[in-house]
Amino acid sequence: MKNMLIVHGGAPTAVINASLYGAVTEAKKHPEVDHIYAAIGGSGAVIREQFLDMKTVDEGRLELLPFTPASAIGTSRDHLEPEDYEAIARVIEKYDIQYVFFNGGNGSMDACGKVYAACKALGLDVRVVGIPKTIDNDIAVTDHAPGFGSAARYIAATVSEVSQDVRALPIHVCIVEAMGRNAGWITAASALARSGDGDGPDLIYLPERTFVEEEFLADVKALVEKKGGVVVVASEGLTGPDGKPIVEPIFQVGRATYYGDVGAHLANLVIKKLGIKARSEKPGICGRASIAFQSSVDREEAVLAGREAVKAALEGQTGVMIGFERLPGAEYAVRPIRIPIEQVMLTERTMPDEYINERGNDVTDAFVEWCRPLIGEPLRPFVTFKNDL
Amino acid sequence: MKNMLIVHGGAPTAVINASLYGAVTEAKKHPEVDHIYAAIGGSGAVIREQFLDMKTVDEGRLELLPFTPASAIGTSRDHLEPEDYEAIARVIEKYDIQYVFFNGGNGSMDACGKVYAACKALGLDVRVVGIPKTIDNDIAVTDHAPGFGSAARYIAATVSEVSQDVRALPIHVCIVEAMGRNAGWITAASALARSGDGDGPDLIYLPERTFVEEEFLADVKALVEKKGGVVVVASEGLTGPDGKPIVEPIFQVGRATYYGDVGAHLANLVIKKLGIKARSEKPGICGRASIAFQSSVDREEAVLAGREAVKAALEGQTGVMIGFERLPGAEYAVRPIRIPIEQVMLTERTMPDEYINERGNDVTDAFVEWCRPLIGEPLRPFVTFKNDL
Repeated sequence: MKNMLIVHGGAPTAVINASLYGAVTEAKKHPEVDHIYAAIGGSGAVIREQFLDMKTVDEGRLELLPFTPASAIGTSRDHLEPEDYEAIARVIEKYDIQYVFFNGGNGSMDACGKVYAACKALGLDVRVVGIPKTIDNDIAVTDHAPGFGSAARYIAATVSEVSQDVRALPIHVCIVEAMGRNAGWITAASALARSGDGDGPDLIYLPERTFVEEEFLADVKALVEKKGGVVVVASEGLTGPDGKPIVEPIFQVGRATYYGDVGAHLANLVIKKLGIKARSEKPGICGRASIAFQSSVDREEAVLAGREAVKAALEGQTGVMIGFERLPGAEYAVRPIRIPIEQVMLTERTMPDEYINERGNDVTDAFVEWCRPLIGEPLRPFVTFKNDL
Repeated sequence: MKNMLIVHGGAPTAVINASLYGAVTEAKKHPEVDHIYAAIGGSGAVIREQFLDMKTVDEGRLELLPFTPASAIGTSRDHLEPEDYEAIARVIEKYDIQYVFFNGGNGSMDACGKVYAACKALGLDVRVVGIPKTIDNDIAVTDHAPGFGSAARYIAATVSEVSQDVRALPIHVCIVEAMGRNAGWITAASALARSGDGDGPDLIYLPERTFVEEEFLADVKALVEKKGGVVVVASEGLTGPDGKPIVEPIFQVGRATYYGDVGAHLANLVIKKLGIKARSEKPGICGRASIAFQSSVDREEAVLAGREAVKAALEGQTGVMIGFERLPGAEYAVRPIRIPIEQVMLTERTMPDEYINERGNDVTDAFVEWCRPLIGEPLRPFVTFKNDL
């Protein structure tokens, strides 16, 4: 009998706990797994030996996991040094752990690879498997990763409601700032707000394209003249022709640089340069781990990713991350795959050209088709009446 | 047979269409009501004679109304002059309208009273009844008004999710900016995010109290030392000891003054003056008309308000607004009442002292008890694990 360890890394999502649920319930089925240690507070918690044996958690609380946002066992952005990986390997040895799971994004997959190497250096027989987690959808190789579908549903549903608001009272330009500093997947998913009735976002600005202020102002002006109210969705990470963020860094604390808000900046441009009323909304972390907008498809895939990781480790696999391959056919279907971890470590996946329109102010139908199944059930239909007299 | 007119005014809510549904379905039961005209685009649309006869709308589309956010018949912030009220009265005469309903907030109730006076001056036998609508809950006399319960549910559920995020990754102070410039009801409702397990908002700043920067920074600092991550909810309309907004007006377009964001301002203060990581979220209009967070109690009361308004007009009442009186007893119950419109015209209701704590950085239990039934079903329970080894 050997023990298992699961660690969460990086920012929360709406379904990271669903993957934890999948991993724990799968592990409980296998008699060769003894203790199921969860690190309480990310990778640093491993070094501090802060664990909870998930086998001691009663069923009722376990069943809440798939519907609990953020990370129920905590997470961290700990910056690990080479000696930290060795320390983690020694704790793994001390606790007689054979199965190690890191649930996280690109950074966590990097940690995953380094922990594997550190264990190997100590001569430990350890299997290290990655469970992907993201909101930005920036993990390479896999078709998409758990966390994105829910973040996509959040922005689509929210922008659909905001568009209904702006259509009802068309007195301003409304800029919604979306998360995803280098990858525009979340921003792009706002296109799913469109019902085909002229609503939804009018303009979408992705970080994969240079933001040209003059084109933005011209596009907004033309739309205001046509519709009155305009909805713009913009990535928090837009950069200008000089390659720098369109908002200035305002201050620095330690390693962190603080920038002004892109949404507020664009609204101010519209007011100052066009003299048109504008406002901005920045749901920010409200949309990062929202159970109210959790995608059922995302939740199920997250559970599956957790289960598959445990199965892979028990089959003797190591140094792999679970991913999804989309199967061909009209009906949406995926199959879990095992990706060598060096293919995903610190690699950032951004939007491909075929998903972005030529002017760089919208997505293509190909993107919408790719993204639609990931958000789960269709959004609620709304009704809008026009005068007939 | 006489005709009916319904007009929406002011900003959208999550349940104004539910009141429209209540009014239209009630009116259809009464053979003495012939055409049911909806003004498509607020009070200005009445003058422009932009109407839709709601009797021509098929059932399927009508049934979508209680679950459609914003205003399905449009709304406006038209500033009406005395001659406009006379113009509206002439249209009412032209279309043989006897029953007039204004669904809106304080400003719309003022318009309601003035339309009534203009009709009387023309010698028309018209009954004008107000249906209350608000997100801010600033309408006088009534216990609360439709729209608030859903805005309250939005902020409570959202802050509960944000708190779960910050608890899982306690690396910053997170400021959530809430709507309600002069009345703090929405900001206060964030207290319902608390599950009793030490989560939920740590500090709540209402516009009814002077914001003292030094006290805010001291409170934040103490909490960061204790908890690591801190969640603050602040009204968009906070004012300082000088009585002026804590953010400077940044520019003026026409009658509108634009201010910086309170949330971003407070986050910047924490970073600059305490050297602590901070960020801000501003859901803004994302929370104004969100069906995903609609309160079932709010929706039902909104339908009831619409029905009661039609009943009152058919009984010969005029110059009244429908309101709610809360009945005594452990179980939540309200009864609809009819309030003389002059008691509510342009009167703004703010939070009473007994709902605000002494230091002015939180609400009282009395407020939570008053507010809890309005948000509908209890929020989802979440689970958080602690280390046991």
